[in-house]
Amino acid sequence: MPLWNVYYPEGAYTVEDKQEFAERITGIYTKYNLPAFYVSVMFHELPADTFYVGGEEASGYIRIWVDHIARRMPDEMSRWWMDQVNELIAPFTAERGHRWELHIDNTPMELWTIDGFYPPPADSDEEKRWARDNRPSHPVAT
Amino acid sequence: MPLWNVYYPEGAYTVEDKQEFAERITGIYTKYNLPAFYVSVMFHELPADTFYVGGEEASGYIRIWVDHIARRMPDEMSRWWMDQVNELIAPFTAERGHRWELHIDNTPMELWTIDGFYPPPADSDEEKRWARDNRPSHPVAT
Amino acid sequence: MPLWNVYYPEGAYTVEDKQEFAERITGIYTKYNLPAFYVSVMFHELPADTFYVGGEEASGYIRIWVDHIARRMPDEMSRWWMDQVNELIAPFTAERGHRWELHIDNTPMELWTIDGFYPPPADSDEEKRWARDNRPSHPVAT
Repeated sequence: MPLWNVYYPEGAYTVEDKQEFAERITGIYTKYNLPAFYVSVMFHELPADTFYVGGEEASGYIRIWVDHIARRMPDEMSRWWMDQVNELIAPFTAERGHRWELHIDNTPMELWTIDGFYPPPADSDEEKRWARDNRPSHPVAT
Repeated sequence: MPLWNVYYPEGAYTVEDKQEFAERITGIYTKYNLPAFYVSVMFHELPADTFYVGGEEASGYIRIWVDHIARRMPDEMSRWWMDQVNELIAPFTAERGHRWELHIDNTPMELWTIDGFYPPPADSDEEKRWARDNRPSHPVAT
Repeated sequence: MPLWNVYYPEGAYTVEDKQEFAERITGIYTKYNLPAFYVSVMFHELPADTFYVGGEEASGYIRIWVDHIARRMPDEMSRWWMDQVNELIAPFTAERGHRWELHIDNTPMELWTIDGFYPPPADSDEEKRWARDNRPSHPVAT
């Protein structure tokens, strides 16, 4: 968690863009203390004849879908969150003249593992340790 | 909303097919007054050795997954809806001798923006205006 | 159901690997009497500059996301299930030195068809017939 899927028109992003975009996305989660390695970002380049919006070839359109797993956003915080995200990604969307659509789904924490480990509860000491180590590990006996 | 992902075997669809398929998909939503630009359709071509059904290379198989966001289908209407959809897409599935599987997920309306705007409530005057303009915009002060 | 999406680094899997991996995934469901043809597995090869974990190019990383439709796992069985799955896929993940993340979502059974048919209830006689035939069909009048 989260898994970001970024679909972009052929040629819209360079390798450097993708690197920086991925770092920005990661930053919005690490700011709230999520382990950096929780954040996966996949970029998918779409030729013009494979992406349609409103029945027409989508030109200059960025389509992003995200699965959130480790955190469940309370409804009343969703606008605060989405505004942050849209501002964060603006250098790769609005500021380049792209149109963009973004939606997030929530998926169950119980059906999620990393390297076979079950991620610890949100904001727990174990999660802080994972964040510090930037890798998953066995619970520490206390 | 909705986001359609259509996976098809290499060579099954031409550019013209994809264009017409996308228009058909869009039509089933605009028929119920959704703004056309809400409807995104992505086509993904899958070489034979990348798609397996029942542990065997899927041959002539169309696999579609959809995220619905703007509307939540009441359970008792789901068959009415799915039958419509399957009939609509028949020229690109059954009528060509393909097998096809289709499933739809619902994702939260609160975690969805287009060009940074929050889509207005279903069937609201604002949504009608978006549909008419075929683009998102700021709420009009009343 | 289920739909497995396996993202892997360029060159990590051969055609034979994908075939065997898909068979293994299928086996974990048919073991519990699901029809084999319910199990779809798609493999997506990701060049290094298209997949980032923690803001860095993901190297040797397998990312799997799954949609479950036909069965809803009770919360208390999720670890039993995930442990099985992780053990099953180990020859293609841990045992090759890959890191891997896996998450599963649940999607509504009502919004799912195969070849236009509505899959029968879990563990019903109809479902057993579908499993035996390894294809969907009209309900048999009784």
